[in-house]
Amino acid sequence: MQTVKGTRDLMPEDMRIREYVMDKIKQVFEVYGFQPLDTPALESWEVLSKKEAGGKDVLKEAYDFEDKAGRRIGLRYDLTIPLARLIASNPNLNLPFKRYQAGKIWRYDDVSKGRFREFSQMDIDIIGSDSVLADAEIISCTIDCFKALKFENFYIKLNNRRILSDLADYAGVEKKLDVFRIIDKLEKVGSDEVRKQMEAIVSKESAKKILDFIKIKGSNQEVLKKAGKIIKSKGLEELKEILSYVNSDKVKVDLSLARGLDYYTGPIYEVFADKEIGSVAAGGRYDKLIGLFLNKDVPATGISFGIDRLIEIMKIKTENKTKVFVIAVNDKVREKVLDIVKLLRDKKIETDFDLRSRSLSSQLKYASSMKIPFTVIVGENELAKKSVKLRNMKTGKEELVKIKGLYKKF
Amino acid sequence: MQTVKGTRDLMPEDMRIREYVMDKIKQVFEVYGFQPLDTPALESWEVLSKKEAGGKDVLKEAYDFEDKAGRRIGLRYDLTIPLARLIASNPNLNLPFKRYQAGKIWRYDDVSKGRFREFSQMDIDIIGSDSVLADAEIISCTIDCFKALKFENFYIKLNNRRILSDLADYAGVEKKLDVFRIIDKLEKVGSDEVRKQMEAIVSKESAKKILDFIKIKGSNQEVLKKAGKIIKSKGLEELKEILSYVNSDKVKVDLSLARGLDYYTGPIYEVFADKEIGSVAAGGRYDKLIGLFLNKDVPATGISFGIDRLIEIMKIKTENKTKVFVIAVNDKVREKVLDIVKLLRDKKIETDFDLRSRSLSSQLKYASSMKIPFTVIVGENELAKKSVKLRNMKTGKEELVKIKGLYKKF
Repeated sequence: MQTVKGTRDLMPEDMRIREYVMDKIKQVFEVYGFQPLDTPALESWEVLSKKEAGGKDVLKEAYDFEDKAGRRIGLRYDLTIPLARLIASNPNLNLPFKRYQAGKIWRYDDVSKGRFREFSQMDIDIIGSDSVLADAEIISCTIDCFKALKFENFYIKLNNRRILSDLADYAGVEKKLDVFRIIDKLEKVGSDEVRKQMEAIVSKESAKKILDFIKIKGSNQEVLKKAGKIIKSKGLEELKEILSYVNSDKVKVDLSLARGLDYYTGPIYEVFADKEIGSVAAGGRYDKLIGLFLNKDVPATGISFGIDRLIEIMKIKTENKTKVFVIAVNDKVREKVLDIVKLLRDKKIETDFDLRSRSLSSQLKYASSMKIPFTVIVGENELAKKSVKLRNMKTGKEELVKIKGLYKKF
Repeated sequence: MQTVKGTRDLMPEDMRIREYVMDKIKQVFEVYGFQPLDTPALESWEVLSKKEAGGKDVLKEAYDFEDKAGRRIGLRYDLTIPLARLIASNPNLNLPFKRYQAGKIWRYDDVSKGRFREFSQMDIDIIGSDSVLADAEIISCTIDCFKALKFENFYIKLNNRRILSDLADYAGVEKKLDVFRIIDKLEKVGSDEVRKQMEAIVSKESAKKILDFIKIKGSNQEVLKKAGKIIKSKGLEELKEILSYVNSDKVKVDLSLARGLDYYTGPIYEVFADKEIGSVAAGGRYDKLIGLFLNKDVPATGISFGIDRLIEIMKIKTENKTKVFVIAVNDKVREKVLDIVKLLRDKKIETDFDLRSRSLSSQLKYASSMKIPFTVIVGENELAKKSVKLRNMKTGKEELVKIKGLYKKF
């Protein structure tokens, strides 16, 4: 009896980390004025595959099937396509619409690479602003999220699809999306392999022009300057403007960043926080996507946080939220335990007690293995003094405490 | 471009209510020592249908399909079967295991009755205690949840499958589960219809015995006393014990409560909070369910909260979490707006500003339609005094405030 391949249970200790991460991120989203939204996990196949929406590759990984009435439906493979559908079907929405959403998504991906098929994302998007201020807003918010999570060595790669598109024009390349997909592999497979793959679909000369360009290195200012000497691109201007708004050493212009999805039209970005693992958040501007669902384009930009990857690299320990376990030394005092539990819970103190009529030592063992920081030991001698023993489970120290004021100890 | 039939979007104003409700409930769950858990939305069909798990009726409503490798999988139709699978596959778990879980579940239900096909539940369960203390724990926690949500006229119907089973024996009935399903309809379809349906499968005499019993009225003590004169049942003793632990006028013993699911074995309960709508939370003891997945029985008891129904009857209004919208009176001061926004956000104040280069009046209109309670108006005259205008959007009152101390106003 196992979980479905590519899915997993999150036990309490894992869940506490996930909740910590998601709460922190949510707080920052709200400080930036993003509003909560939820959309269904199920969408019609018409929506999920609208003019190839996220692209052929992602559609191949979608979980789709027929419902009992023969409707073709599927599980969402991202939170962006459902948002586009929502925007298109709510024409009277106040724009810009800044929303955040947390939820699971499903992709039939290669599990041998440690990928999950059901995983959690948190997204922010700004719909209805074509200003790079909106892109800067997404990037600044992202930086603050990683700071809130106490990451120190994270950085954001920044590029612009307009630059890549102008580069392709300059290199005389037509199959732009195919070239973008190869460019995106530079860091992973290296320069030689990229050249090889590129030369399979474009001329040697074109490949060289592209490779020389995307390998430009230096400070953000230097990269933009060098690139500007090779091509003229509105994309370069946009990056300059974004950098002036964001003004953080966490942002690194990287001309080889291309992003896998087809629908990006402007600035694109990916966050790296750990050497062992790929990007933990990624996004960009997609001004044409909502237009697939509507008879007009609506500008949009946003980012997705991969919560599962973030949790994997978080090196935090969370405590059991249950603060105290109330223990009966024998059966005679079990009713009194119930009274004390109620007294503490009424004060909103996370309290638990034995539900299995166990011995004192078994109860202590359970509280210890559950990593509950305090136990209250209820015995007849102490009750005679209207008191109980309070035990700090870490230090082993015990003290006699009056029941009346017990709650103040937590 | 619509949502799939039986599913829906939750816009920010709805989401804020849902989050309020779920946060309140979660807090109470934690006060009672329940631990967070998550299981996948997808489960193998083998798990979902294990020896009919939740019963034939619920399996008929399940979303099941083949994945790309031909595995039969499905979306969970409750949070209990996945929990049973988890317990069975983690034999070294510390018992009792008290967990809470919030998540979506899917049932292909009749949408004409206003039912959703994708909805949210929050569950608590205690695994590994056969004591009615555990049932009392679930009921007390439930009462505290509804109190925390400020419900006043809610009540919990309480019965016991053992009583119904002993009643069936007393009435000489064999098809117990079928009879339970008919009993459960008493309140909805009335006494005559229940008699009719009952007489279709049992003798007139048996039907009368059952009907007379389940219609017993009175205070909890009276009902238990009258019932005890007709049948001997351990179930009656258990209810007495639960009432002694819970001791709340919110609990009403109702011998006609039977619950739809097959797997209940002991105390069962349903919460009603509004006349217009059915139960908003329901549960009971299911000591045999985990045994379907394991070679031994493990006692278990728990309740599910129907979050969508709760939201429907909550009469609360939530405010936009965004506290302040910073407005530029003209393009010259837009950069200064960015500084002020950053200043407020650094103090964790939920702050937004214009991303569309709009006029002063359009910005005010937007802030008002978004129900943001305050605006900060940035103009050149005020800036000369290192100040801005702070406007209360409800009262219309304005005051001049020094930028340095602006954050203290929120």
